[in-house]
Amino acid sequence: MRLAVIGGDGIGPEVVAEGLRVLRAVHPKVETTDYDLGARRWHETGETLPDSVLAELRGHDAILLGAVGDPGVPSGVLERGLLLRLRFELDHHVNLRPVRLYPGVTSPLAGDPAIDMIVVREGTEGPYAGAGGTLRRGTPQEVATEESLNTRFGVERVVRDAFARASRRPRAHLTLVHKTNVLTKAGDLWARTAAEVGAEFPGVSIDYQHVDAASMFFVTDPARFDVVVTDNMFGDILTDIGAAITGGIGLAASGNLDPSGANPSMFEPVHGSAPDIAGQGLADPTATVASVAMLLDHLGHADEAARVEGAVAASLAARAAAGGARRSTREIGDDLAARAVG
Amino acid sequence: MRLAVIGGDGIGPEVVAEGLRVLRAVHPKVETTDYDLGARRWHETGETLPDSVLAELRGHDAILLGAVGDPGVPSGVLERGLLLRLRFELDHHVNLRPVRLYPGVTSPLAGDPAIDMIVVREGTEGPYAGAGGTLRRGTPQEVATEESLNTRFGVERVVRDAFARASRRPRAHLTLVHKTNVLTKAGDLWARTAAEVGAEFPGVSIDYQHVDAASMFFVTDPARFDVVVTDNMFGDILTDIGAAITGGIGLAASGNLDPSGANPSMFEPVHGSAPDIAGQGLADPTATVASVAMLLDHLGHADEAARVEGAVAASLAARAAAGGARRSTREIGDDLAARAVG
Ligand SMILES: CC(C)[C@H](C(=O)O)[C@@H](O)C(=O)O
Ligand SMILES: CC(C)[C@H](C(=O)O)[C@@H](O)C(=O)O
Repeated sequence: MRLAVIGGDGIGPEVVAEGLRVLRAVHPKVETTDYDLGARRWHETGETLPDSVLAELRGHDAILLGAVGDPGVPSGVLERGLLLRLRFELDHHVNLRPVRLYPGVTSPLAGDPAIDMIVVREGTEGPYAGAGGTLRRGTPQEVATEESLNTRFGVERVVRDAFARASRRPRAHLTLVHKTNVLTKAGDLWARTAAEVGAEFPGVSIDYQHVDAASMFFVTDPARFDVVVTDNMFGDILTDIGAAITGGIGLAASGNLDPSGANPSMFEPVHGSAPDIAGQGLADPTATVASVAMLLDHLGHADEAARVEGAVAASLAARAAAGGARRSTREIGDDLAARAVG
Repeated sequence: MRLAVIGGDGIGPEVVAEGLRVLRAVHPKVETTDYDLGARRWHETGETLPDSVLAELRGHDAILLGAVGDPGVPSGVLERGLLLRLRFELDHHVNLRPVRLYPGVTSPLAGDPAIDMIVVREGTEGPYAGAGGTLRRGTPQEVATEESLNTRFGVERVVRDAFARASRRPRAHLTLVHKTNVLTKAGDLWARTAAEVGAEFPGVSIDYQHVDAASMFFVTDPARFDVVVTDNMFGDILTDIGAAITGGIGLAASGNLDPSGANPSMFEPVHGSAPDIAGQGLADPTATVASVAMLLDHLGHADEAARVEGAVAASLAARAAAGGARRSTREIGDDLAARAVG
């Protein structure tokens, strides 16, 4: 396995180190190349993602990213120049975010309801296309537009991926989330495509919810969801609500996939670089390790993925049983690696 | 007070009847005109909002709406043709939604945190403009766009309204919510405008959050919010999360305001027409009555508004103390009216 590693900034390199340790514990043949990208590189060179680096990244089987950014980088620079550029250049059209309340983890929702869903968020179009413009900036006549671009090609492939995932899950239930009653053009495309692709998956039950209602039900009745498929912007919001109800972004894993395999997929914890606690061994690497499980699964190592995922669940349950005493980044990594090898 | 009343469909007329009863209990001089709009009218005549009706509505001091819609109306027809048309034609640029956890109401959030904020949502532009189009519909080459239109004029007036509201509240704290790191054109306009208008309100502290983070904090730490100002689409989502954390849309009130007074403002509960329970006296009119309090406040009757708002809070607390036994629409209206007169 040829893995590109972008540790990034703040706690990024620390959590990635533990992720790699757990990965190597279950999958001995890992060859890594480190790439220095993120806030530090931008401060030093003004570069976010040089073409030559992008070309090298393409030669790998997958990418593992920690976190990038620091307060000194203007908003949008690393997002547009690095994170979104990777998604668009590497055709990461399936942004996969499991939303699962692990045993032992306390939800902010009363009664800790059963939560086990996966959000399939479109990753390469919609309001994230960067289309739009500004007229008469800084005047009372200023106009600023943002355009959501949606194609049958782009919607169909992510919807089909979501149906396929739903068909492999016990409940086999898919919820399309959009805002068809207001965004009638894109909504019509999404709804028609879901209905047509759904006909290929007779075993999957289909549901539709407006994004405002879905956001509400994530909080009041998350158990109703199994697989959720939605557009890029709605998915951004819903997956953060999903993280919120399952213990916070500190535990949330994600994958940016090109399921065709034409490009390396990228895996990363959802949390940020947390500069305030960097270098102190305080960061929890669990979300990175859960992302490593997704990486293994994506590359066809289902058994190893299950072992890492099982280690995450068992470790969280054990930590809760032990009263949740604070452990270092390294201690948590040790524990996860030990549980993953079994 | 000349009030236009749109009872609408399902439980709409029932809850509006109680809203009017409470209104009349505190404000004797109310002259109402009923307008038959909604699903029933559309089924019978194909009309959503005839120009002549719109012209008549303009002659009133305010509009009270129950709920419109039934499962037989195609999605988007009443939204675009009636609800959004009212907002756009009557320049309802301030969509006001209080998010308050009343004493006695159980939140789905563990520990029932203190929640008392107000969301000021832009109501006449953004992704709701209806701009965009479809090319090659129904073919593999289909493209569908949605365009968010944002103007300095539109952003500035709603941001100023939000700052003014914040300056009148004890905490005087305003949070701008957008997605400036991805929607860089509109985000830049919103952020610059908030900073500039904020300079006029030195007593108000300003905060910014991306919409995904704000959605998370609504769930994990709602107490950090006081006044939230945001665009039309983000506001739609955030206010439903707001309703979810404070007992559900069954209790959520809203106002669509033209604060200039040039057009009548409209007040309505956030819930739908609930055709399944219509006509049985099962609907809870509390959200409509809370919307009536907003109506009174908007028309300058602050004392009467406070009495109605106080009645809502006291009634909910009393219901909880009484074990939450189910009461009819009429019984709840009686109770609210009695408490409002004092
Ligand atoms: C950093 C930002 C560009 C990104 C997004 O909006 O997609 C983040 O919020 C995420 O969810 O991965
Ligand atoms: C019915 C719909 C058009 C409306 C909206 O999206 O604004 C509703 O969800 C609301 O929040 O008032």
